[in-house]
Amino acid sequence: MNTTLPTLADIRAPALTQALQHKLNNKTKPLGSLGRLEALALQLGEILGTESPVMDQPQMVVFAGDHGLTARGVSAFPSDVSWQMVENFLAGGAAVSVLARQNGISLTVVDCGVNHDFLAGLPAGTQRPGLLVRKVAGGEKGTADSSAQAAMTAAQCQQALQNGRDIVKGLPGNALLLGEMGIGNTSAASLLLARLTGLDIEVCTGAGTGLDAPAVVRKTAVLREVLAFHPQATAPLEALAALGGYEIATMVGAVMQAATERRVVVVDGFIATSAVLVAHALQPLVLQSCVFAHRSGERGHEFMLQYLGVQALLDLGLRLGEGSGAALAWPLLQSACTILREMASFESAGVSEKSETTPVTAA
Amino acid sequence: MNTTLPTLADIRAPALTQALQHKLNNKTKPLGSLGRLEALALQLGEILGTESPVMDQPQMVVFAGDHGLTARGVSAFPSDVSWQMVENFLAGGAAVSVLARQNGISLTVVDCGVNHDFLAGLPAGTQRPGLLVRKVAGGEKGTADSSAQAAMTAAQCQQALQNGRDIVKGLPGNALLLGEMGIGNTSAASLLLARLTGLDIEVCTGAGTGLDAPAVVRKTAVLREVLAFHPQATAPLEALAALGGYEIATMVGAVMQAATERRVVVVDGFIATSAVLVAHALQPLVLQSCVFAHRSGERGHEFMLQYLGVQALLDLGLRLGEGSGAALAWPLLQSACTILREMASFESAGVSEKSETTPVTAA
Repeated sequence: MNTTLPTLADIRAPALTQALQHKLNNKTKPLGSLGRLEALALQLGEILGTESPVMDQPQMVVFAGDHGLTARGVSAFPSDVSWQMVENFLAGGAAVSVLARQNGISLTVVDCGVNHDFLAGLPAGTQRPGLLVRKVAGGEKGTADSSAQAAMTAAQCQQALQNGRDIVKGLPGNALLLGEMGIGNTSAASLLLARLTGLDIEVCTGAGTGLDAPAVVRKTAVLREVLAFHPQATAPLEALAALGGYEIATMVGAVMQAATERRVVVVDGFIATSAVLVAHALQPLVLQSCVFAHRSGERGHEFMLQYLGVQALLDLGLRLGEGSGAALAWPLLQSACTILREMASFESAGVSEKSETTPVTAA
Repeated sequence: MNTTLPTLADIRAPALTQALQHKLNNKTKPLGSLGRLEALALQLGEILGTESPVMDQPQMVVFAGDHGLTARGVSAFPSDVSWQMVENFLAGGAAVSVLARQNGISLTVVDCGVNHDFLAGLPAGTQRPGLLVRKVAGGEKGTADSSAQAAMTAAQCQQALQNGRDIVKGLPGNALLLGEMGIGNTSAASLLLARLTGLDIEVCTGAGTGLDAPAVVRKTAVLREVLAFHPQATAPLEALAALGGYEIATMVGAVMQAATERRVVVVDGFIATSAVLVAHALQPLVLQSCVFAHRSGERGHEFMLQYLGVQALLDLGLRLGEGSGAALAWPLLQSACTILREMASFESAGVSEKSETTPVTAA
């Protein structure tokens, strides 16, 4: 499969990294005492290529799409909830709407293939504020049922990747927060996790929006069947096309483009991380640009994070998606930047440093 | 020992709790999918006595004091750092200054007994913006060396408690964030933890501002000696007087007063939690008003949280104190309130609820 994806460069510059570490070490605090916030500050400085990072005009993009596999009863909610929630995002009432507003984050919803026409009844050419219609399959169509055929064709997968790239190219600012909506998309994410990591589908499958234990068992059986139906789909883009979703594929393109442009990418939960998993399989350097907002309560997320070798900032048992965890973690990223920019150094504040380099001795 | 502390009432009102839970359950999200943020929202609603909590004019108060025990070499930094850091707080360059500013939190520093005269050279009666001088022992004195005598007298302890109460009475708003500064105060906190919980001092003692392993061993030996020197100081206030610090005792009074006034109390790390530990020993209901901001990297903190039966919001390996963790967690509290106030319900947003109460069956 041809890809239209850019090739990523290594963003690390040893001199800058050293300067950032030196700057952090000389802030008025015991060495390393801001814990993981210091590693975060270092990373943000590296991504933005400066000792004084400023994150500007953060953009939450919620990628939405429907899933043919829901015909197999893999979700606790009906597919109609996908479009209803998109309307809720646009009306400002969803968790991600509220949290984005609280934190000064712009919110854009992308219809990557929701079973609904959001422009129905409007004059041709009308746009709705906050909504981008980038349906991959055209019409009011989500993906095909991946238990019976590929979720999308190779061409559709390419189109979704390109859409994601183009969307990011048009965004202001230097930070992208990933959100998503799509009834059935924990199934797609579980399938991608199992296929790309080799983990058994059982440990990759969770309750999604709220299945009970017997329903999780049935969901797992369906997903095992889907994997068996696509034995050839092992390469990242083949797996994405066979098992993924339009919102996930569009997100993969968006992540790659954002990394190319050295934007900070704030990754939400299970579904958003599945997009990063695919992007990472294509180009591992993409991880340099990604900050993982939280460890989701959805079962497979922990294994995704482990596989990628990353640690998330928050661990609050969130399992809502939408980008809600990314929005919740956002102030921590701002704090990391603020510490680099605004905290005094020992010298500038006239504060004594640690008594001695050798251990203090008791009197 | 007589106390001037108020008696706390149980803040829970079953009807309100039920109404809050109902409201959370009907927000447009899968049941419980906002994880611990939902429990936090419930608690904040209970503390503030409303289904639509608004936290107003948050006040970070940094309680500062020096410790006579530092003569025994228990800290990696010289005592002078206490007053130097107070100046840094006032100048706006410390971590807590920067983080409070970022999050719109007012910052007040209280000199509870720092070895320094912050008003030296100023005309009598001059006040410094952001500073309250509430020295317990008068002059430029911290506590006495607790390895040779009680850190403070019973009367001084009472005075500190009363100071804490009076400070909170004078604060605007309905939320108090606890911060502290005092070279040597991890020792005082470790001593209180050991004495009030019965844990061995070894598991209560950590590296503080950055002791190496041999120095921690020596610190532990000094602290064991201190405990042995005060075998009679077992009741909470006796332990506080014998082993504590002026900033910790003042904080105990502040916490009790804030709980009485039904303010939200945001507890920072190891030192702030040691004050809550004492307050809890006096009146367990105080915990109802406390939100624990983070699990510190300082060794004993986890055991404090376990003993109190509480879970902290963040776990980022912070071990700076000052209130930095409380300031970092603050946006999460705001988010919890915002979700209660601003998120749409299924009904108001026209979103379908979960398909069935019985499990979804696979087709």
